[in-house]
Amino acid sequence: MAEEKAKETKENLENVVFVGKKGTMSYVLAVVTQINQGANEVMIKARGKAISRAVDVAEIVRNKFITEAKINDIKIATEEISTEEGNPLKVSAIEIKLVK
Amino acid sequence: MAEEKAKETKENLENVVFVGKKGTMSYVLAVVTQINQGANEVMIKARGKAISRAVDVAEIVRNKFITEAKINDIKIATEEISTEEGNPLKVSAIEIKLVK
Repeated sequence: MAEEKAKETKENLENVVFVGKKGTMSYVLAVVTQINQGANEVMIKARGKAISRAVDVAEIVRNKFITEAKINDIKIATEEISTEEGNPLKVSAIEIKLVK
Repeated sequence: MAEEKAKETKENLENVVFVGKKGTMSYVLAVVTQINQGANEVMIKARGKAISRAVDVAEIVRNKFITEAKINDIKIATEEISTEEGNPLKVSAIEIKLVK
C-alpha cells in the first residue's frame, strides 16, 4: 500500500508541465508527448502572467489533440517567490490536472 | 420550487464580476463590495490575458479581505468572440466561484 502510494507520487512528479514564457504550442507539445508516452494524467502548472497561457494549453490539448482528455481538477493558490534582489514576492499560481 | 430556482439564477447573474484591463484592485473592490452587500457567492469571470488577473483577484479577496471566503469551483472553457473586423477568434475563459 505504501509502495503504491510512493509510486503514485513519483508518477505525478514526472508528469508535470511548467508553463512559462515560451510559445503556447511548446507546452501543448510537451503535454501531448507525455500522454502519448503513456501518462494517464498530466499536471499543467503556471505562475503569474503565464496562468493565462496554462489555460490556453489545457484547452488546446483537450479541443484539438486529445479530445478524450478531461479536466479533472483546477486549483489556484498564492506562492511566495524571491525576486532577483532576494525580496519576497507573492504570486498567484494555477494547477490544472488533465486526465485521459 | 420553480420560483426559487428563477430567483437563484437571477442572483447568480447579478453577482458576476468580469475582470478586464483595469487594475487588479478595482476588481477586488467590486467583489468585496458585492459580498459586503450580502452576496453569498460571487462569480469572477475573465477571458484571454485577463485570466491571470482573475486568479489574482480571487486570491487577494480570499487572503486579504474576506478570509472566510472559499473557492467553490473553477471552470475553464474556450469561447468564440468576434474581432473588430468581424472575424471569429477563439479565446480561453475562466470562471472562479467564490463562496462566503
